[in-house]
Amino acid sequence: MARAFVPGHVTGFFTVDRADDPTKAGSRGAGLALSEGVTVTVRPAEAVAVTLNGESVEIEAVERVLDALEATVAVRGVTGLPVGSGFGVSGAMALGAALATNDLLDRRLSTYELATIAHGAEVQAGTGLGDVVGQLHGGVPIRLEPGSPQHNKMDAVPARSRVEFQTFGELSTSEVIGGDTEAISAAGERALSRLVQEPTLERLVASSRQFSREADLVTDRVYEVVTDVAEAGGEATMGMLGQTVVALGSGLSDAGYDPTVCRVDPTGATLVAPRGDRTLPE
Amino acid sequence: MARAFVPGHVTGFFTVDRADDPTKAGSRGAGLALSEGVTVTVRPAEAVAVTLNGESVEIEAVERVLDALEATVAVRGVTGLPVGSGFGVSGAMALGAALATNDLLDRRLSTYELATIAHGAEVQAGTGLGDVVGQLHGGVPIRLEPGSPQHNKMDAVPARSRVEFQTFGELSTSEVIGGDTEAISAAGERALSRLVQEPTLERLVASSRQFSREADLVTDRVYEVVTDVAEAGGEATMGMLGQTVVALGSGLSDAGYDPTVCRVDPTGATLVAPRGDRTLPE
Repeated sequence: MARAFVPGHVTGFFTVDRADDPTKAGSRGAGLALSEGVTVTVRPAEAVAVTLNGESVEIEAVERVLDALEATVAVRGVTGLPVGSGFGVSGAMALGAALATNDLLDRRLSTYELATIAHGAEVQAGTGLGDVVGQLHGGVPIRLEPGSPQHNKMDAVPARSRVEFQTFGELSTSEVIGGDTEAISAAGERALSRLVQEPTLERLVASSRQFSREADLVTDRVYEVVTDVAEAGGEATMGMLGQTVVALGSGLSDAGYDPTVCRVDPTGATLVAPRGDRTLPE
Repeated sequence: MARAFVPGHVTGFFTVDRADDPTKAGSRGAGLALSEGVTVTVRPAEAVAVTLNGESVEIEAVERVLDALEATVAVRGVTGLPVGSGFGVSGAMALGAALATNDLLDRRLSTYELATIAHGAEVQAGTGLGDVVGQLHGGVPIRLEPGSPQHNKMDAVPARSRVEFQTFGELSTSEVIGGDTEAISAAGERALSRLVQEPTLERLVASSRQFSREADLVTDRVYEVVTDVAEAGGEATMGMLGQTVVALGSGLSDAGYDPTVCRVDPTGATLVAPRGDRTLPE
């Protein structure tokens, strides 16, 4: 068997950049890779089977990855992240399946080739535009140009922080990115300009908050929580695309909420050792 | 104070790509980022002072970084890596100083801007061409196009491994990369083609070994040790540019040597917390 860990990725702001080639389509924007993520284990199997936290699931992006790698394997994902709430769980499953399957079946593809397959699969499934790229790099990735790692242009905010998040329900990524996205992209471009001018965590969160208002994506509940955090002296914004609030430091705790606490993940997606194997870090 | 950890980086093969703009100059090639690295701590000071393992040192690349950031600080580097033996200690000091100084003095530059400053400083100092880029990304970086992170093109080998190394003396990077490098670059291009065809760790080491012979860089002592490792059934190559042998797994131990044992660093250069600060991982 082979195993990969892929960090969660919460998007602060984004554009929608369509293209006929799914490896060139994607989004510009920025977000946070999180130390909470998905551990993906792949084993040889008689038929493709995908589970998430023990339950059988259908994740189109994962199926597309396995097709591309001509792999008949069982994929097991385990995560403490909420699903369908803007943490990139489908992207993590796709990227983790790509990395682990390549290792298990000795497919001899490069990291960027595997990430390109996972990114293209997410785009074609309509479940994400920028998560795979953010998850590959870890940290606080800035996506200056859209597309897969073989086509895009990256930068990052050189900062690490404690991060808190709490989810108040689901939102459908595919409904939003499948609809009219002109206003979203225009707001996303303005947010990107603001962040590039001053690439700090505080600016990322403030730019994202402004984006969420301009793009008209904030739900009432998210607005209320973000306001509570601000009133308690903290910095928070909506996690795209979910009914999710993300705060720096102890923003949500200080405002009386009961969030999950994690950190910025510094590493990005990586192979890890199955338990008991001492040649790799666990 | 602010602190960064930068992995060591040992180059397997490389080209020399000159350009008038030091941020566009650099090298193509591949190597290993190592869990052994340099911890760089920066403090405000009356005058610039740089120490490495407690001793006062002059590192031109670090001075150039501090000039670019208009910073008068004390830079303290601590490392278990051998100096002047092909592990990118000067690059690590330059990149670590850039990341930590930006954090300490709130310079608000991005990760790639800081890495570009450090890369340009190394190139101008003549002490390295690709280490800073490899150290920024961590893992097993492949440099497909030369230059700083704002200009180059990367990929990586999706693998993790135990790594062993042992050093048998120093070699001057600046003498080699300052001299006639046509044959080196031609050999480096061939090695890169071989690796891109099959981006695995075993191919990286085999390609590097062939490069070291074709580029006529192998010293007698290194040749002897690499041969010993091969005879014991292992995979080893020369670390560029040092009298250094790097082996996968337990290659050097199995051949009866007494190497330093580490792992591929998955993370790359990152800010870390000073001891006692619980907001960041130590």
